[in-house]
Amino acid sequence: MKPKNAFYAQSGGVTAVINASACGVIETARRYPDKIGKVYAGRDGIIGALTEDLIDTSLESDAAIAGLKHTPGGAFGSCRYKLKSFDEQRAQYERLIEVFRAHDIGYFFYNGGNDSMDTAWKVAELASRLDFPLISIGIPKTVDNDLAATDCSPGFGSVAKYVATSMLEAGLDVASMARTSTKIFVLEVMGRHAGWITAACGLAAKQSGEPPHILLFPEIPFAPEPFLLRVDENVKTHGFCAIAVSEGLSDASGRLIAEMGGKDAFGHAQLGGVGQVIAQLIKDRLGYKYHWALADYLQRSARHIASKTDVEHAYAVGRAAVEAAISGKNAVMPAITRTSDVPYRWEITFAPLSEVANQEKKMPREFITPDGFHITDPGRRYLAPLIEGEDFPPFTHGLPHYTRLQNSSVARKLKEFTL
Amino acid sequence: MKPKNAFYAQSGGVTAVINASACGVIETARRYPDKIGKVYAGRDGIIGALTEDLIDTSLESDAAIAGLKHTPGGAFGSCRYKLKSFDEQRAQYERLIEVFRAHDIGYFFYNGGNDSMDTAWKVAELASRLDFPLISIGIPKTVDNDLAATDCSPGFGSVAKYVATSMLEAGLDVASMARTSTKIFVLEVMGRHAGWITAACGLAAKQSGEPPHILLFPEIPFAPEPFLLRVDENVKTHGFCAIAVSEGLSDASGRLIAEMGGKDAFGHAQLGGVGQVIAQLIKDRLGYKYHWALADYLQRSARHIASKTDVEHAYAVGRAAVEAAISGKNAVMPAITRTSDVPYRWEITFAPLSEVANQEKKMPREFITPDGFHITDPGRRYLAPLIEGEDFPPFTHGLPHYTRLQNSSVARKLKEFTL
Repeated sequence: MKPKNAFYAQSGGVTAVINASACGVIETARRYPDKIGKVYAGRDGIIGALTEDLIDTSLESDAAIAGLKHTPGGAFGSCRYKLKSFDEQRAQYERLIEVFRAHDIGYFFYNGGNDSMDTAWKVAELASRLDFPLISIGIPKTVDNDLAATDCSPGFGSVAKYVATSMLEAGLDVASMARTSTKIFVLEVMGRHAGWITAACGLAAKQSGEPPHILLFPEIPFAPEPFLLRVDENVKTHGFCAIAVSEGLSDASGRLIAEMGGKDAFGHAQLGGVGQVIAQLIKDRLGYKYHWALADYLQRSARHIASKTDVEHAYAVGRAAVEAAISGKNAVMPAITRTSDVPYRWEITFAPLSEVANQEKKMPREFITPDGFHITDPGRRYLAPLIEGEDFPPFTHGLPHYTRLQNSSVARKLKEFTL
Repeated sequence: MKPKNAFYAQSGGVTAVINASACGVIETARRYPDKIGKVYAGRDGIIGALTEDLIDTSLESDAAIAGLKHTPGGAFGSCRYKLKSFDEQRAQYERLIEVFRAHDIGYFFYNGGNDSMDTAWKVAELASRLDFPLISIGIPKTVDNDLAATDCSPGFGSVAKYVATSMLEAGLDVASMARTSTKIFVLEVMGRHAGWITAACGLAAKQSGEPPHILLFPEIPFAPEPFLLRVDENVKTHGFCAIAVSEGLSDASGRLIAEMGGKDAFGHAQLGGVGQVIAQLIKDRLGYKYHWALADYLQRSARHIASKTDVEHAYAVGRAAVEAAISGKNAVMPAITRTSDVPYRWEITFAPLSEVANQEKKMPREFITPDGFHITDPGRRYLAPLIEGEDFPPFTHGLPHYTRLQNSSVARKLKEFTL
């Protein structure tokens, strides 16, 4: 019997290592030609499946697929398109099965975060109900590190390494100029609900007194007075104060601090600028000159400073997804399970999608110091291994050499479908 | 006769490689113990000389000094303190000579930009007039690349490599999400008067149509209509538009675009946000969702992605400064002179400080395309070699291992001096 084809899609915000997971999926599938036929990828994620816009990865060379391991972004395109409940979007779910049937797809690999795990689970349920033979496996990915059932999420370790390195470097810069120039430096990082990335900035401070001096987490309601007091203490003690802040920092009433920073010339609230709001608050109240940086997409695409551990995790969950699928596992997600902090050891386990879907892993309160302004030793112990190791991409002419695939389309067989 | 001591100071904004110049100075001086005694460094730059706050670098191990080659920031501290004319600040100039005399200093190495070359020149003049035996050598440094008489300024190549890499990576990120999410990405980089750093972002686009699609230079007055037209064309052709903008972008009347972005909650003009002003203009006029990043100090301290060429330049000008000094040259700056583009070849020459001081090297208009939105082939030919090669720092526990010196003080011999 001809082996079934596989469908792979990337979902949601991309990362520096999501393509390493794609590489793990495709390279492993190629090792089992008697079990898996072609691997089709969704162009722009699940939208590619719904619109029958499939990419034939079998046309890519082994070298091109290997290159995915060191290429950031989403090689096949990704999208923010959440499938809601069966009741609301039954047509979408049925369309997926229709496309899978038309292209002889027996394996569904969905590489994403919480929402995607929910979708993968629902697709598994529907296939079972319709008696359509399909194995549905979720592959974890998110820089936010908020996926349940896995010790960490591939993508996070590399952002963590980038922000900690950036904070270390900017800290040296500010320290050397503080006597006559900038005394306050604020780095704004991603994290709407969870402060994992801000916590990672804290790794740059190996000893008390080293930058960053203050971390502002979305988990801790922002109160200006104790914060300003702490800033002033740091300037008076160390000559300067370096701060990392989560974009989702809020006050006790839940209001985003970013929204407190006035209107722009067009009357819009200035979002995406909590870093500046915080810095300007310090300037107004304490008079210190500031600089601020907004890492934005730079942090999640910085493959040049990816964590080797993270790349290995990302590849491993891709590979494990395929191995699980051909061994008959269904409706699971390969999870990273830590077996030791020092030396760091981990293994792949499998979590039922039903236990992952729509859960959110919060940062434990014991990872944050009692005063709310830094990370604790348990926090460091958790975070430190995730940034361990370097895995520099190849460079040509001074720039990373990133792989671009041909992304050839599979011929359509079905009628058009309107999203 | 006991050899004279040397004084070295870092000036102005620090870079990823200014310490490599310090390394070149100190390592070379250590090779000529019969010509140069101790190397004293100014704590926080020239202020250290004026306040007789000297650091004894002879107490640092060879390994620590070698570590400076891969450590960003200013290892001895820097400052923004410009010495004005003799007439205005005669006391300061005379104090410098007094401190040099007290500590038996016969060599003055001043590592900085345009202003510092002017100071080094004035100090040489004064010493000569006072018949004080002093050799004064300027060592070039500035991320702005605006120093005269040298093909490029150490510090610039590493910023160039950082911003081009960041733009390449963020471009891949945006490309993969553009169908359903962000269509506009704006990266704001340094450059008040000269667009060198913005031009370097352009290296990420190896072919027409690749991000960044548009560069906004301070040399080209910003006109919204042709810009918006070009943005829309790019979104319609490529699905997205990536833009790099210099902080100093201005309109035809010379008004900073950053100042057009309304007031913050405290009524201040929102400076440092031309990236957001541009992005918001696009959102308002064309309706496209945007993200923006502000690289700020991250760009000039990113030693982890330094250009090997830049590190070599920085070290070479430090070494050449000392070799020039002991060979009797005075009032000169070692300059980088390019002898070939492909293969890239360069040598050190010496420019009289009088020819460097207070000059500003502008970016040639022929490096910018006629429409003002990108770099030309001559621009690429100039820029490309400057980002060539990698020189990763050592890493421990996932982070770059940067050197921290002891920075022990030299005992004071003089009365206090008020700045």
